[in-house]
Amino acid sequence: MRTTLPQRVEIHEEGPREGFQIERPGFSISQRASLVEALAQAGMPQIQVASFVNPTRVPQMADAPELFRAIRKRKGVRYTGLWLNEKGFERACSVAEVDLEGVLYFYASDTFCQRNNGVSSTSYTAAQKNWVQRYAAHDIAVHKCYVMTAFGCNFEGAISLQQLRVVLQGIVDLQAEAGIHLQELYLADTVGWANPRSVTERVDLVRELFPGIRVGLHLHDTRGIGMANALAGLQAGVDLFDASVAGLGGCPFSGHSAGGAAGNICSEDLVFLCHELGIETGIDLKLLIDAARLAEQIIGRRLEGHSMHSGLLCVQA
Amino acid sequence: MRTTLPQRVEIHEEGPREGFQIERPGFSISQRASLVEALAQAGMPQIQVASFVNPTRVPQMADAPELFRAIRKRKGVRYTGLWLNEKGFERACSVAEVDLEGVLYFYASDTFCQRNNGVSSTSYTAAQKNWVQRYAAHDIAVHKCYVMTAFGCNFEGAISLQQLRVVLQGIVDLQAEAGIHLQELYLADTVGWANPRSVTERVDLVRELFPGIRVGLHLHDTRGIGMANALAGLQAGVDLFDASVAGLGGCPFSGHSAGGAAGNICSEDLVFLCHELGIETGIDLKLLIDAARLAEQIIGRRLEGHSMHSGLLCVQA
Repeated sequence: MRTTLPQRVEIHEEGPREGFQIERPGFSISQRASLVEALAQAGMPQIQVASFVNPTRVPQMADAPELFRAIRKRKGVRYTGLWLNEKGFERACSVAEVDLEGVLYFYASDTFCQRNNGVSSTSYTAAQKNWVQRYAAHDIAVHKCYVMTAFGCNFEGAISLQQLRVVLQGIVDLQAEAGIHLQELYLADTVGWANPRSVTERVDLVRELFPGIRVGLHLHDTRGIGMANALAGLQAGVDLFDASVAGLGGCPFSGHSAGGAAGNICSEDLVFLCHELGIETGIDLKLLIDAARLAEQIIGRRLEGHSMHSGLLCVQA
Repeated sequence: MRTTLPQRVEIHEEGPREGFQIERPGFSISQRASLVEALAQAGMPQIQVASFVNPTRVPQMADAPELFRAIRKRKGVRYTGLWLNEKGFERACSVAEVDLEGVLYFYASDTFCQRNNGVSSTSYTAAQKNWVQRYAAHDIAVHKCYVMTAFGCNFEGAISLQQLRVVLQGIVDLQAEAGIHLQELYLADTVGWANPRSVTERVDLVRELFPGIRVGLHLHDTRGIGMANALAGLQAGVDLFDASVAGLGGCPFSGHSAGGAAGNICSEDLVFLCHELGIETGIDLKLLIDAARLAEQIIGRRLEGHSMHSGLLCVQA
């Protein structure tokens, strides 16, 4: 194995949003707040608490403002939200407890972008200029972006490196036009097309086009190789990951069809991997496993995480 | 990522034994035979069908002889069994349908060996000479061995490289004394202590002490990093793996205690990883996923595998 592993990795927790968005509605605010608090207690530096989306379409997230207000905050932890349009953003802005982040989104797959947003990937990129202005109007710095479907999608199949290069070049141009300087770029494997080789080559490509940028990985464990993809990222020196406690976000009721929902890679298993490789995370794995078990207790069903069931490595008396 | 990936990998299927050994008794011979047949149909070159162990202690395996006889065999596929003592071996020998393999077992953890076999690891190694003679009496060549707990165990913790070196040196000596030449040596992560770094260093160590030997990996996915460990093996050029269809072998009822049973790494997810990396396996992934779904249907509970739920990568019309 290469020795270019990072010394320290930053993991952002996606579970509370990813998980409760896909589960049946009805989990109480106190249940969800207690999970967020347990994650903060374990040392998660950033937790995505909820999304500000259409309450009619996603009733699970209708009480996002109340949830944010209910959480006993821990100093130094960022409690973030997700929005997909202006309306959602304005709702998030109205909640003082949300740590607002200026995030831009891009799509490597044109068809995926068309189907989800009704516009081409190029138009979507151009429209991010409006988001820069909108963030500026709220005094929010733009320093971070996601490239969705960066590896492939179920409409176009694998996204070629050349295709990704064009999209990334569009982001380079947008930076210049909008007068911003992105410090973090996440490659998101939105629907599970990444493999260790494509992770390596795409991380390299981002660094070629954005010298000095910090590359992040947002991986899903759709076909069981999420942790192998994470290892490939670590070996390439990636030190920024999204992950989901207990593997929350996967849907056990999704059928045997391509694109069946799968959660992010599991936070505590990723932390276990990092620690075993001598990489610091700033996270207390024991407390994170406690949080994963709390998630399982709240959801009321066996969840995907492994360390939470096997426990920490330990020597019996 | 390094480019020393093997061109072709051989995967041996452990699911029928690992799985039905841990599940409640009562699955019919026709159910289990149909799974073995589906695995052979998918191209698995070797399938461990059942173990020949004490029927009082493991009633699930009491009908191993009948199961072997019920299977419609496919040419070129090896249908193997497991035994732990002479009595089990003699039972296996009495079943013409078993493809007998001369396998030797060793333990890196002395305490684990003591607790499981009542003798020290050194004595256990010495006793393997008797197995060489026993196999010879049945005209069975000895070409393969397993080093159990090669990474650690819950009694001794992590096994040091130096500790493993001593055990491996004992095997080198045994080879000379018994006049055999091992062609394959498997490092078995019996209770989930491996990580990508320890995989790499231990594969290197085996090759140092056994020039020209083929190294195999028997990995369990105890803490969610099994596939990352497999990737580290592939990167080190390992081309021989045990795996378990659908991840069979894990016990969903094991509590939150260290050593809770976890299955082998999942066969079809490993095949998916290999194929995505351009490594041949000789296996039809679609048929293997069919076999995994059959396993889930037989067991009657959602199993661990991921590809079986998400399906093959495909592009929707």
